Amino acid sequence: MELNQIIRSIQSKQSEISSVYFVGCGGSKADLYPGFYFLRKNAKKLIAGHFTANEFNYDTPAAVGEHSIVITCSLGGTTPETVKATGLAKSLGAHTIAVTHDPQSPLTKDADYVVTHGFHESYSAKVSKPTKVLTLAVEILNAFEGYNAYDHFIEGVGKIYDVIDEATELLLPQAKQFGEAYKDAPVIYVMGSGATAEVAYSFSICLLLEMQWINSSSFNSGEFFHGPFEIVEKDKPFLLLMSEGSTRPMDSRALEFLNRFDAKTTVIDAKDFALLNYIAEDVVDYFNPILIEGVLRIFAEQLAIARNHPLSKRRYMWKLSY
Amino acid sequence: MELNQIIRSIQSKQSEISSVYFVGCGGSKADLYPGFYFLRKNAKKLIAGHFTANEFNYDTPAAVGEHSIVITCSLGGTTPETVKATGLAKSLGAHTIAVTHDPQSPLTKDADYVVTHGFHESYSAKVSKPTKVLTLAVEILNAFEGYNAYDHFIEGVGKIYDVIDEATELLLPQAKQFGEAYKDAPVIYVMGSGATAEVAYSFSICLLLEMQWINSSSFNSGEFFHGPFEIVEKDKPFLLLMSEGSTRPMDSRALEFLNRFDAKTTVIDAKDFALLNYIAEDVVDYFNPILIEGVLRIFAEQLAIARNHPLSKRRYMWKLSY
Repeated sequence: MELNQIIRSIQSKQSEISSVYFVGCGGSKADLYPGFYFLRKNAKKLIAGHFTANEFNYDTPAAVGEHSIVITCSLGGTTPETVKATGLAKSLGAHTIAVTHDPQSPLTKDADYVVTHGFHESYSAKVSKPTKVLTLAVEILNAFEGYNAYDHFIEGVGKIYDVIDEATELLLPQAKQFGEAYKDAPVIYVMGSGATAEVAYSFSICLLLEMQWINSSSFNSGEFFHGPFEIVEKDKPFLLLMSEGSTRPMDSRALEFLNRFDAKTTVIDAKDFALLNYIAEDVVDYFNPILIEGVLRIFAEQLAIARNHPLSKRRYMWKLSY
Repeated sequence: MELNQIIRSIQSKQSEISSVYFVGCGGSKADLYPGFYFLRKNAKKLIAGHFTANEFNYDTPAAVGEHSIVITCSLGGTTPETVKATGLAKSLGAHTIAVTHDPQSPLTKDADYVVTHGFHESYSAKVSKPTKVLTLAVEILNAFEGYNAYDHFIEGVGKIYDVIDEATELLLPQAKQFGEAYKDAPVIYVMGSGATAEVAYSFSICLLLEMQWINSSSFNSGEFFHGPFEIVEKDKPFLLLMSEGSTRPMDSRALEFLNRFDAKTTVIDAKDFALLNYIAEDVVDYFNPILIEGVLRIFAEQLAIARNHPLSKRRYMWKLSY
């Protein structure tokens, strides 16, 4: 079923939707963020909530019920907390949509609707997950409140994957350079703003902490000057994700400071890929995280190669129960 | 004006409030979190949003208007981004409440209502800021939707400060031990769950990064097993903030794992201060961050002493413009 058909199907059963919850863990939680961010920004009546799955399970919002849509997300569809959240949401009468790579996975058991996405085929396929969640959010807004820039958004979805696959081809030299320059970093800080904030978060907790065992933290570029910037000194390793659009001034201000004090800074900038040549200005904010997460993958891969530490290496995951 | 009178005054001007935004930067953003968390959990109709101030300024939610209450917060009342947010909210017709230590500060200029709080008098005074923001959130819910546990909450506010001041007196030996044990730590990870999640965040970005120049990150205990836990090895420094109530199982599960792999773990546990002896079970979730932030201060102080690095020491803040 197409994404707009899913939302129309929900609308045919329940004409009054008052809340939308985005529920997942780790990288999947981060992949839900652009959709959440979009609704929080643009909805005038809908409540939008974003949760790590067990917080949703243990301290469920009072508003979850038959007037809610709950979107859960898990790449393999087996994350126990998210599977549980889907069942809980359904038991409370919510309309449940599971987003996963595996249509047969446990996540889909209590889902009214299942959205599957690619992953292994290409760099752009790896971000079909956040793109589909974002599209669901746009369809929900359009259906229940109306959204003026809907056509611009749908046009953008038709172009963003090609932009990513072309960008990653050109980026290999820069990614190799990043891998060499950061391979011995004792810590790496990652920053982003707007809808891109949780791309910084997921790169920090999944790619660096989990897959590379490198100490790391992330924060919103807007928070940088309210604490974190005091850690900056010469050669301190930073990775700055710069967005086109509304929140770019926050990223630019952070970059100026990092350069002023000679931090070791790598910038991934949506502007470098001419994002506005492909995406209309009134929706560009929401495509930044898709593009940047897409191209970031090769930076992680090159870091893994430079460190001789495969991205699939784990201490605990897949090895023991916890 | 008492906090309930402020909300009654808003209600007399506008009987339909549909959204409440909590806007601030850094430590003040974190101090807004328990109030936001409370509304997000308990409101059935109200939209609750939580923003770093410049994200609110640059990408203002479409719902901000005459049916909104915007609560801004800045200790000294001079944070430029938050001052700007207050003015922006007012210009959009929102009802603005400024929460600050200084009633004459720029933050109050565009505020319809000003809430002042203590800070220097005692450990409990340092958390009167989040307590008052939380109380505003409770008053808003009670006024516009009703809140069954209102009396329990107000009783709790009458007790929590004494709990904190008694607890901090007893904690000095443990705090000294923490200072000695962590003084040479290359990085410190901080975790908490539920309403306490951003106490972990503020301890990481303000006390550790800003005031001690120690590398640090924080995350929700519920996210620990979805990336961050792979960084755990013997003697890895962790600080775990354990809450009473709904989300405690998330903290307990993280603790079990940290102990299993011999991380260097310090636990600040609301249960150790018998929080449930003073606070009713149906509101205890929201007092965890108040109590834990209150007692954490002496851990920061003792770390500063052990490192001979005063909490007031800065590289950039107060020294240059940025």
